[in-house]
Amino acid sequence: MVEGILLGEFEVTPYSVTGRVDYDKLVEKFGLALIDDELIEEFGFPHKLLLLRYFYAHRDLDKIIKYYKEHGRFAIVSGRGASEHIHIAHVLLFRFVLELQKRFNAFLFVPISEDEKYFAKQELYFEDARRFAIENLIDLIAIGLGKKDTEVLIDTLTMNAKIYGLAAKIAKKITLNTIKAVYGFPNETNIGLHFYPAIQAAHILYPTAEKDLPSLVVISVDQDPHMRVARDVAARLSLFKPAALESRFLKGLLGENKMDASNPQSAIYINDSPNLVRRKIWRAFTGGQPTISEQRKRGGNPDICTVYEYNAFFFDTLEQAKNKYIKCRKGELICGECKLELIERMQKFLEEHKRKREKARDRIYDFLDIDINSYLS
Amino acid sequence: MVEGILLGEFEVTPYSVTGRVDYDKLVEKFGLALIDDELIEEFGFPHKLLLLRYFYAHRDLDKIIKYYKEHGRFAIVSGRGASEHIHIAHVLLFRFVLELQKRFNAFLFVPISEDEKYFAKQELYFEDARRFAIENLIDLIAIGLGKKDTEVLIDTLTMNAKIYGLAAKIAKKITLNTIKAVYGFPNETNIGLHFYPAIQAAHILYPTAEKDLPSLVVISVDQDPHMRVARDVAARLSLFKPAALESRFLKGLLGENKMDASNPQSAIYINDSPNLVRRKIWRAFTGGQPTISEQRKRGGNPDICTVYEYNAFFFDTLEQAKNKYIKCRKGELICGECKLELIERMQKFLEEHKRKREKARDRIYDFLDIDINSYLS
Repeated sequence: MVEGILLGEFEVTPYSVTGRVDYDKLVEKFGLALIDDELIEEFGFPHKLLLLRYFYAHRDLDKIIKYYKEHGRFAIVSGRGASEHIHIAHVLLFRFVLELQKRFNAFLFVPISEDEKYFAKQELYFEDARRFAIENLIDLIAIGLGKKDTEVLIDTLTMNAKIYGLAAKIAKKITLNTIKAVYGFPNETNIGLHFYPAIQAAHILYPTAEKDLPSLVVISVDQDPHMRVARDVAARLSLFKPAALESRFLKGLLGENKMDASNPQSAIYINDSPNLVRRKIWRAFTGGQPTISEQRKRGGNPDICTVYEYNAFFFDTLEQAKNKYIKCRKGELICGECKLELIERMQKFLEEHKRKREKARDRIYDFLDIDINSYLS
Repeated sequence: MVEGILLGEFEVTPYSVTGRVDYDKLVEKFGLALIDDELIEEFGFPHKLLLLRYFYAHRDLDKIIKYYKEHGRFAIVSGRGASEHIHIAHVLLFRFVLELQKRFNAFLFVPISEDEKYFAKQELYFEDARRFAIENLIDLIAIGLGKKDTEVLIDTLTMNAKIYGLAAKIAKKITLNTIKAVYGFPNETNIGLHFYPAIQAAHILYPTAEKDLPSLVVISVDQDPHMRVARDVAARLSLFKPAALESRFLKGLLGENKMDASNPQSAIYINDSPNLVRRKIWRAFTGGQPTISEQRKRGGNPDICTVYEYNAFFFDTLEQAKNKYIKCRKGELICGECKLELIERMQKFLEEHKRKREKARDRIYDFLDIDINSYLS
């Protein structure tokens, strides 16, 4: 019996998401709590992505709020799985993380788990996984990662005894039965993937074990099984149980649940050319009607619209997004207008990122004590 | 089906040895080769423990000899599992390793795997396993470990990205099925123990991956399953397959196959008091007859005698051991004489070790870049 799977017609695990995700059922099945306006107010962080419920579920956020009110500090853990190029859902999450860090004066730990990707993807070479990890870190720096109160780990490049020691301590508390129940790997799977949850839990619990700070983990909801393992272990090691803020998936361009990092048509990548971005957005799935006159008459459906969502999450203020929502429903907005607006904004954003990325390359030594050039051939 | 088990009435795995071990059957079952006089001569290292066949089996020693003749160098890997106090079988093996290193100008890598012990022993605390690792290292230094051409790793205290990275690379090549077949752990076992063979293989292959030297692993034969995993992986990573020199077990004081580190009556520990050593040896199992007069008449049996073996392996020259063997058979030696001799020698040895150990404590920083005091409370 695999947790996180068999939820009617969809399944969500850290390693695959299929079917049409029912986010409410996920909350119930995973044992999460929904975020509501009262909690956001209590948190004192009325971020657009919380108000729009892109971050829609949590574990123990109330406890983090309480701890922060008493101690003025907590830790954020938010990592990257390492892929050839990050896509804009990663950007969205990481921008949120950086604003969160700034708002709360938090310690930020960014573990990059290219080992997990390497274990999980049969065809991925070790050297490529490492290269992706470094390139992804350069992107995070370009997005705004700063060295103040921040630590970065690239598992196979900067692993140290503190993390491995913690992972070993944790691994003894996790039986193979537990891994089978939570992740459902068959025996043909390599032992790296079976052990990885101990590394992941060590990432999550590192600020707690080393700095005595409770961790708030910022992830998309598919990563929640790792939280369950880490929370169970934390309790048994007498550490703060880590809390989590969990997001929905950013819709894929073709209307899928989730941008699929392995399908180039599904996502906008950080290195997409302006022409490619135009083509992708122009073909994107919207909530529009078949013809403009129908759209004028019956209105569109922003709830299922990729273009509405990208504009709202990425570029619009909350007010702008709400206005567009109403105008779309009323038939006062045509898909072409939204698409053109998104194309222009996205092209500009990616162009700026490219520029920042050039400067970010040298700043990698703020975070790593290794010569990256030998890994970037 | 568990390899290394089900050999008639005994079983040998890295985690347990039971029954009366048939060393020839082990050679056959594990696919080892026996060491013969010709190979020892070819090796150019007529060490007593080889000539007496304490080290009795090997894998690819001939290839190491060939490589050494061409390149004047190879690597030795010989670790410690970390236990509260090392016993004299550990001393014996490690003295051999140091002489081997000296003779061949070899690079020596000494991984201390307190993580493995911690995973394998339900009742062992993490902090204790770490403390044992440090204390064991102090013993190895007292035995003669020098910093020249030597590296030490204590898994949870000095793990680094080179070892973890190599372990990750290796882990992807090992399925859970393989681990089940080689080690036979049930699903109730923790994931640390399931993953550990990748760490062990990384220990074994580290000199090859990092320094391009083939490894000769010096171990007791129960550790051979780790060799099989490492050799299989080496081939798939296009690395030299590691070679091995494998020893029998030093008999337990009560006549068992193997000194049992967890039974204080079975072994002489490095910290045993002179009185305790006297008592233990006085009660030791010998090959003697029930009465002195019978012994004089029919002779003793050194082949099954613990006291003969300890004197021979530890203190006697080859010539002395051979003489004693003959005299014992002829009834010209009485167990009491051998015991008294062993008691005196062993007490003296342990006393000297204690003295050396005091000086060794400060030399630990030749090998470790951590403050050990916080781990030794």
